[in-house]
Parts: sequence; C-alpha cells; structure tokens
Amino acid sequence: MKLDSFNEIVSKYKVVFFDSYGVLKNHQGLIPGIHDTIDHLRQHHIDFYLLTNDASRSPAELAQVYIDGGVYITPDKVISSGMIALEYLRYKVSWGTVAYLGTQKSSHYVAQVGLKTISISDVNDDNMNQISALVLLDDEGFDWNVDINKAINLLRKRNIPVVVANTDFTYPVSKNDVALAIGGIGEMLERIIRKRFIHFGKPDTQMFHFAFDHVQKTNPVSKNDILMVGDTLNIDILGANKFGIDTALVLTGNTQPNRAEILIETMGIVPDYICESVVG
Amino acid sequence: MKLDSFNEIVSKYKVVFFDSYGVLKNHQGLIPGIHDTIDHLRQHHIDFYLLTNDASRSPAELAQVYIDGGVYITPDKVISSGMIALEYLRYKVSWGTVAYLGTQKSSHYVAQVGLKTISISDVNDDNMNQISALVLLDDEGFDWNVDINKAINLLRKRNIPVVVANTDFTYPVSKNDVALAIGGIGEMLERIIRKRFIHFGKPDTQMFHFAFDHVQKTNPVSKNDILMVGDTLNIDILGANKFGIDTALVLTGNTQPNRAEILIETMGIVPDYICESVVG
Amino acid sequence: MKLDSFNEIVSKYKVVFFDSYGVLKNHQGLIPGIHDTIDHLRQHHIDFYLLTNDASRSPAELAQVYIDGGVYITPDKVISSGMIALEYLRYKVSWGTVAYLGTQKSSHYVAQVGLKTISISDVNDDNMNQISALVLLDDEGFDWNVDINKAINLLRKRNIPVVVANTDFTYPVSKNDVALAIGGIGEMLERIIRKRFIHFGKPDTQMFHFAFDHVQKTNPVSKNDILMVGDTLNIDILGANKFGIDTALVLTGNTQPNRAEILIETMGIVPDYICESVVG
Amino acid sequence: MKLDSFNEIVSKYKVVFFDSYGVLKNHQGLIPGIHDTIDHLRQHHIDFYLLTNDASRSPAELAQVYIDGGVYITPDKVISSGMIALEYLRYKVSWGTVAYLGTQKSSHYVAQVGLKTISISDVNDDNMNQISALVLLDDEGFDWNVDINKAINLLRKRNIPVVVANTDFTYPVSKNDVALAIGGIGEMLERIIRKRFIHFGKPDTQMFHFAFDHVQKTNPVSKNDILMVGDTLNIDILGANKFGIDTALVLTGNTQPNRAEILIETMGIVPDYICESVVG
Repeated sequence: MKLDSFNEIVSKYKVVFFDSYGVLKNHQGLIPGIHDTIDHLRQHHIDFYLLTNDASRSPAELAQVYIDGGVYITPDKVISSGMIALEYLRYKVSWGTVAYLGTQKSSHYVAQVGLKTISISDVNDDNMNQISALVLLDDEGFDWNVDINKAINLLRKRNIPVVVANTDFTYPVSKNDVALAIGGIGEMLERIIRKRFIHFGKPDTQMFHFAFDHVQKTNPVSKNDILMVGDTLNIDILGANKFGIDTALVLTGNTQPNRAEILIETMGIVPDYICESVVG
Repeated sequence: MKLDSFNEIVSKYKVVFFDSYGVLKNHQGLIPGIHDTIDHLRQHHIDFYLLTNDASRSPAELAQVYIDGGVYITPDKVISSGMIALEYLRYKVSWGTVAYLGTQKSSHYVAQVGLKTISISDVNDDNMNQISALVLLDDEGFDWNVDINKAINLLRKRNIPVVVANTDFTYPVSKNDVALAIGGIGEMLERIIRKRFIHFGKPDTQMFHFAFDHVQKTNPVSKNDILMVGDTLNIDILGANKFGIDTALVLTGNTQPNRAEILIETMGIVPDYICESVVG
Repeated sequence: MKLDSFNEIVSKYKVVFFDSYGVLKNHQGLIPGIHDTIDHLRQHHIDFYLLTNDASRSPAELAQVYIDGGVYITPDKVISSGMIALEYLRYKVSWGTVAYLGTQKSSHYVAQVGLKTISISDVNDDNMNQISALVLLDDEGFDWNVDINKAINLLRKRNIPVVVANTDFTYPVSKNDVALAIGGIGEMLERIIRKRFIHFGKPDTQMFHFAFDHVQKTNPVSKNDILMVGDTLNIDILGANKFGIDTALVLTGNTQPNRAEILIETMGIVPDYICESVVG
Repeated sequence: MKLDSFNEIVSKYKVVFFDSYGVLKNHQGLIPGIHDTIDHLRQHHIDFYLLTNDASRSPAELAQVYIDGGVYITPDKVISSGMIALEYLRYKVSWGTVAYLGTQKSSHYVAQVGLKTISISDVNDDNMNQISALVLLDDEGFDWNVDINKAINLLRKRNIPVVVANTDFTYPVSKNDVALAIGGIGEMLERIIRKRFIHFGKPDTQMFHFAFDHVQKTNPVSKNDILMVGDTLNIDILGANKFGIDTALVLTGNTQPNRAEILIETMGIVPDYICESVVG
C-alpha cells in the first residue's frame, strides 16, 4: 500500500473538506501537529471546511473545540448534519410542534426554523395530535427505557415524518470504547416501525451538495478543486466519491493502518489517496 | 375472504400448536370463550401445546397464567424460545460465565444448564475475559442507557457467541401500546456489531422441530396431524408452513380483520385456514 | 382520502418536475388529455421538466416520444439518471476503458465523457486489466446467462467502481406485465459481490439537486416554487420530500387508487397532494 | 491460528457431516489424499454423510461423482437441499402443477412427490391458473433474459409459495471463476416481488435436523457425537453451531488460509476446530 504525504497532495486543491473526529481530533483532543497542517493550508491559500455527522451541537459549539485547542475556525466553516436536517424542516414542516430525542440544547436546530419543540419525554396523549414531526438529534437527554417506547408508540399512532439528523451508529468515547449514537437508535426504530425515515449526513451526497453550494458563495471553485479527507470508507470516502470530488483516506481514526487495504478491497470503496494522517 | 369455524377445522387434527399472545390471551387476560374451545379439544382428544417467543419466564410461569384463568395446562405443554436457546447453550457453551441482558429471573434458563451467569450490569474489565457468551433474554432488568453500550463494547472486545432468545421486535402492553422486546434490541446490536448472532424463536423452524420431537415422546403423530394456530403471518404462519404443517390464522391479535387479505397478498404468506378466533 | 385538482394546485408553483412513466405516459402512449395540462402550464408560465430513471436513452430520444405524441419538449427539459451517472464518470474516472451492461446505444452516455467503452460481452482475460469501471445502463443488449456471470467474475478480480445508472427494479411493458430493469440486476450483483455500488436515480436527492441547479441557469426559483409530480411513493415522493420540495402523488401509474391510502400509512411517505391524474 | 489435525479430532466423534464442494472435492475432482481419510473413518467405524446445498442433481447422481473417483458412497449417505424442499412440497402442496426454474432433470425432485411439473418456459396465460407453486432448482435449463421475467410476472399474478431449493449465491466453475447459482436468482426475485420465499439449505438448521433424524434410523447418536466439516463460515459453520453440533473449518475451499482468522473475527462465527484440510 503506497502512502501519500498529505501536505504534498493537498497542494493540488483549492478547498479541503475535513471530517472532524478521527481526522483532526480524537478522544484526547486535537491531533498532535495539526497546527502545522493548518498553517500549511493558510500559507497556500487553501480554504477548508469541516463536514461532520453531528446534530447534538451547533456549528459555533463545534468550532469552539478547535478554537480552544488553538486552531482558529469560524462557525461558517462548519457543516453539520444537523444543518441539513434543519433545511428539511424549514421547507417541509410548516405547522405544529416537533418532538425530539436529544438534549434540550440539540433542539436549538429545530427552534432556529421557528418551530415549537417538545422533548419526547413530555409527549402524552393530550398533545400527541399536535406533533408534526419527530427528529432524532442526540443519544443523550432522555431515558432510553421509557422514551424509546414512547417514540415507538407515537409513530404507530401518527403518520408523521421522522428525521434522523446523524447517520452514525456509534461514536468513540475513549481509546477502546464506543457509545451508541442516535443514528443507531434511528436504525432500530425504522426497522421496528417499518416506515421510511429521512436520514441526513454522510455518506448521503446531500451534505456534500450543501457544502459545495456554501463554498460557492465566497469561493467559486469546481468539483475538481476539492479534496475530501476522512477516516471512514463507507461514510466519508463513499459519499465524496459519489458526489464526484477527490478523496483521501487517513489512518488516524476508524480505519486501522493494518486493515486499510483489506477493507478497501472488501468494500470496493477506493480513495484517490491514502495518508497516514493529515500531518506531514 | 372465506372464514372458517375453528371448532370445525380443528377436528381434522390430532395435535394443535397454539401461539399464546393474540390467540389464547390478550392484554386483558384469557380470550372470552376460551374454556369452551379447550373443552372441545379435550372432548375430541386433541392434544395441544403452546409455542411462544418468550425467554423472560419459565414454562411453569407461562403455564401459571392459564391456570390462574381457569385453563389447566401443565408446564410440559409449553415450548418457549428460551428452551431452544437453552439447548444451544447446553451443546455449544462449555466454559466460563454467560453474560445476559434481562431480569435475574430470566437468567434461570442459563443457570439450568449448569453455567455461571452474570448480569450485563456487572460485567467489567476484570471479569470480561471470563465471559463465554452473551444471551439476550428480556427487555427488563437493566439500564438501557448504560448497559446497551456495555454490551456493544463487550462484543467489540470479545469474539463470543451472542444468543437472541426471542426474535420478536415488540410486544403489546395495552390495547393501543407496545413495548420494545429484547429481539428488537438484538436486531440493533447485530447491525451495529456486524457479527452474526444466533436467533431462536418462530418463524425459525427449529422451534417447530423441537415441539414436534417433544410431541413424539408421548403421542406419535405425523406432520399431517398437526395444526399451527397463530395471529402473525410472518412469525407463526411462515414458520409452520416451512416446517410442513397446516396453519390457521386468527384475527384476534396482530392481524386485523380488515387487513388480513391485503397482508396475505402483499407478504405472500398463505395460511391454510383463516378463523375469526379460536372460539366458535 | 381527499383528492386535489391538478390544475388548481399547480398554479401555486413556478416549476414542475414530472416523472415520466405512469404520470405523463403509460404503456399505450401519452395519457389522454395531457395536451390540455401542458397548455395550462404554458398559459400560466409554469416551467416544467421531466425527471426520469432511465439510462438506456439520451435526453433527445426521451423528448422525441413526447414530440411524436404532439407535446413539444426540448431535450434540455429532460433530466435522466444516465446524466447523473455521466457526471460521476466525468469527475471520477480518468483512464482506461469503461465496461457496460446495456445496448450499444446506451453506452453513448459514457462515450460523451470521452471515455472508451466496451460491452461486457467483449471483456476477456486479455483486456480485463484495462477496465476502469463497470456501468449498468440497460437490461437489453447482452446475454444474461453468459454476461451476468462475466460481470460477477470481472468484479471478483478487479476492484473498480460499479455505477448503476437506474435504480428501478422493474419497468412496465404492457397493462399487466413488467420486465426486470437493470437496477434489479444491479441489486443482485451488489449482494453477491458484497461491494458498495454507486447508484444514481430517484429517490436519491442527487438527481433533484442536479435538476434544481439546471433550472437555476435559466429560471432562478426557490425550493418553495417547485412541485414534484410522481406515481411512486418510495421513488418520486420520498426523494422530493427529502430534497425539500412539495410533492403530488398521481394515481395513474404504480399507485392504484384503492391502495394509495394504505400505502401512505404503511410506508410513512406522505405527499403534500394526491391527484387522480395530471389532467383536470 | 492453531491448526488441528483432522484425523486426530475426528476420532472423538461417531458421525461426520461433510460439506461436499471445497471439502471433499474441488473444480479438479476429489481432493488428493481423500481415500486415506475415508479409510481412516471406516477403520474407526466413524459414519459419514454429505450435506450439500444442491437441488440440481439427485442423491444418486451426487454419490456417483465420488464412486467414479474411487470413493464408495451410497445415495442414502447424501442429504441435499433438494430433499428438504421435496419434504415441503410433500406436506404443503397438494394440487395443481408445480412450475420450476432449472433443468428437466432437476424437476425429478418435484415429480417424486407425485406432483405434475412444468418448466417456467412453458408457463403461459392459459395454464397459469393451474400453477400451485414455483420451485427454483438450478441455474441452467432456461433462458434468463426471457424466463426470469416470466417468473416475475407469474408471481405478480398468482399468490403461490416460492421454494428456493439452494441458498447458495454462486458456485465455483474453475480455479478462478464462479457462476451465479439459483439461490442468487432467488434472492433477486424475492427483493423485486417483495414476498417471502421459502428457502432450503444450510445455514438453515432444517437441513441439519433432517440429517440428524436420518442418522438416528440406523445409528442412534447424540448431538455430542457429530462433527460438521465445512469450508464456509456463514453456511456450514453457522448452521451447525446453531443446531448444536461441533464444527471444523477446512481451508481448501471458500475460506483462504490467510483470511480465516480475520473472517472468524469479523463475522463472529467461530468453529470448534480449524484444519488445513480433511487429509492428514
């Protein structure tokens, strides 16, 4: 397996889309050496954006983690799956109250559109008829034993759209452990309810379209000018390949160095480049 | 849709396999008139058994519900999916401690084989290497927010067999509401872990084989002599059709009278008879 | 079920996206009365486009069917899934020869990008290493008994992208009969090969994005100004809902009038309007 | 990865179930040295059976391949998935004509039950109402381009049981090439028709039950006395583990020596033993 130098390959592009976790940061914080990479990008006038499957925090909160680590990123450089879900709500949900699974903080995505929100915990027989949609935002903020059943029964009684604002099944919580993400709960609910939910997040190309359109406003580039950098073949690389931009796999997250080749072969998802990390 | 009289059709058989919930009982207790049906069976010397997807209670406990309602059933007439799981453990797990998701009571199925058991809540880094299997028994008895993640991380670290002792996704808790069954949690875990779990329960034919072999011991009959009665096309009817015995769908549970025909057509699962209920 | 008048609801929009088969035409030709609908749209200055899952014919050929029936449509009003696949090839396949399943005519989509093409029938051990991608275009033009096996073995030996340029499983060939579409063959190959193929066509939102961007060039409108009209819930309506435009289901194609309500309820895919047809 | 000697481990058992292809033979014929293994079994009075996913040939024809190679096997030692399908037809299909996909020879499985048979090629509007079931037996004997569509339209018009008598997706035809098996075609049809087909063959435990019951007639043994030997984790090993008998994986077929460990880890299907081959 031939490894490429990130700094070398990135110089061919005008814009970089970075996945966040496993690429720029991990469970210990920002990846060591990341400041050099950011400097390299800025010196070469290469614009960069974060594309993250996350609906639990706002772009400002997501940017703050980087700022706290000494990497200055403005919120307008962050594209989250929550923002794509918000777009859907803006155009397709025009009445009623939106029920959510997640923390109260995560519900700000919904509130931003001007819709009333209610935690799944507070849904009951009296207000059930006012619910116009169910949005899955975060795995925290509710009692799984009680509220997952509440969601199931709500969906058996009301034929409303269900938005899953993060397609990831799990997320890392330490070096060795993961936790179930809201996308995993969404997957289970969808199979039990047997209705079609509406999923937002990579590998779906909608998030890449959104990011691409967003870039155009300030920096008109072609698809050829953009590189997607990710640590997960069937999330970052699959989606960006399909969208038609170049792709670089890094080995600092989900894809372990000794398994990269076999996974590429087994899944049939081929990145244009493989780099040990975004540093160097 | 032509409806058959249960008492008429059952007279052609020597043995009846009944699904329990939605057939003989519902959320309010035993189905009204059920005593007449049982009398009819006994008068005609038709032997009957319960085949139930349940691993939370022992055959004796399952039988007691009927005895309490005035229908005398001995535990040896009850075949539960927990018993099939127990058979697997008996032959294939010979060492270590079996971790379980469920109540302590449900773990008696495992203990019966002579294996040590430990609730998923008590699994930790120190005892993890002693775990030889994980068994999913009941949706109660553990904290979903904490212990589902514990199960996920156990299975990422240890390549042990996972037994799902009940394939149902939900079960009814009142006239209008259902609750997530352990089979639904198992389905989600299997998709997240991407390993093959071992599922026991209808529609798998293994439970019908077990019941058939069990019947032979006291009452040697042929497959032609047995009728399976169930309320769910893709559980009871599918499995019994495949096993090669006759099938009767009743409309007192999961399959609503006004949707039976369209479901039979859509799913392609055709019962030999359709009866309004097991009464009359 | 409340039915809406198409002429009435369409007046609220500036642009209409029509699915073709089952909406504007059927196995007998253009739907009777369609000329009045087109006149109505033109009188009200409502722009319209065809969005069709078809990679077997060029936009010009697809438009010609309408012109022959007396409805004048220019090729630039036709968006086919073949065009989206072509975009992918343009950006992501830069070398070699593209193998295809389909008629020679359908391969023009690939040739348009400047890539060499070869029918799967002509692939052999000598030229196999020159194949840079496999594209599934049409169910005709090859011998299924021989060439499906050829495709399977090509994909076992070469880790190349596979593009499925039409996601439909079947297409109608007469009042009562359907035929397997190339999307159905693609689905089977993907399950056998166990690699991720790249699918283009509704309900994927990429086709709606493409159409939306295409409209902007001549007619800058917002998502609120567009109505998608389709006959299939899980293709046209699902995709357009997710993309964030309004949707109207018509009952002249895949969705039979007496089954519309139950399908909407069962699938959980809800159109904004239901019209008997696009006429009236 | 610790490798076991087949001759050593097999001595602990009274009965061996062998998968055929990839275990006892390959594309070149019987595996070299197989006669010694058979001698070893006979000297130690270890009974053996073939369990094969094959519905294209009768047990007698399947046995003949071994006899021609100098290994004497009587047809009663061969259990094929076609025999399990035959059992289903015997008990559940009592009228009409059974349509089949396969060679005329393969239809003998159906004829044996006393049912009339008709090749899918000969089904037409006139005789369609007499068809009581569709059976998928072999990938040869019909024109895929024409007859797969015929099968699709038959199943859209008639709600009849569909029996897939071999669950394999592909089978090897030479050192490097495979061909689509009838199980792969069945998988595709099932997804397109969206009805539940009835599948027979490993890893389903029904075939193990059938073999176990068959053994009992002449040689009463317990599950502990039986070893299943196979080359495919998710077919042979998965099914036999679930049935509750011991399992040995051999590396002469589908599972390559350098990938065995990673596949066991990834799939979570763990054999009791791993042997290089059944020889030695």
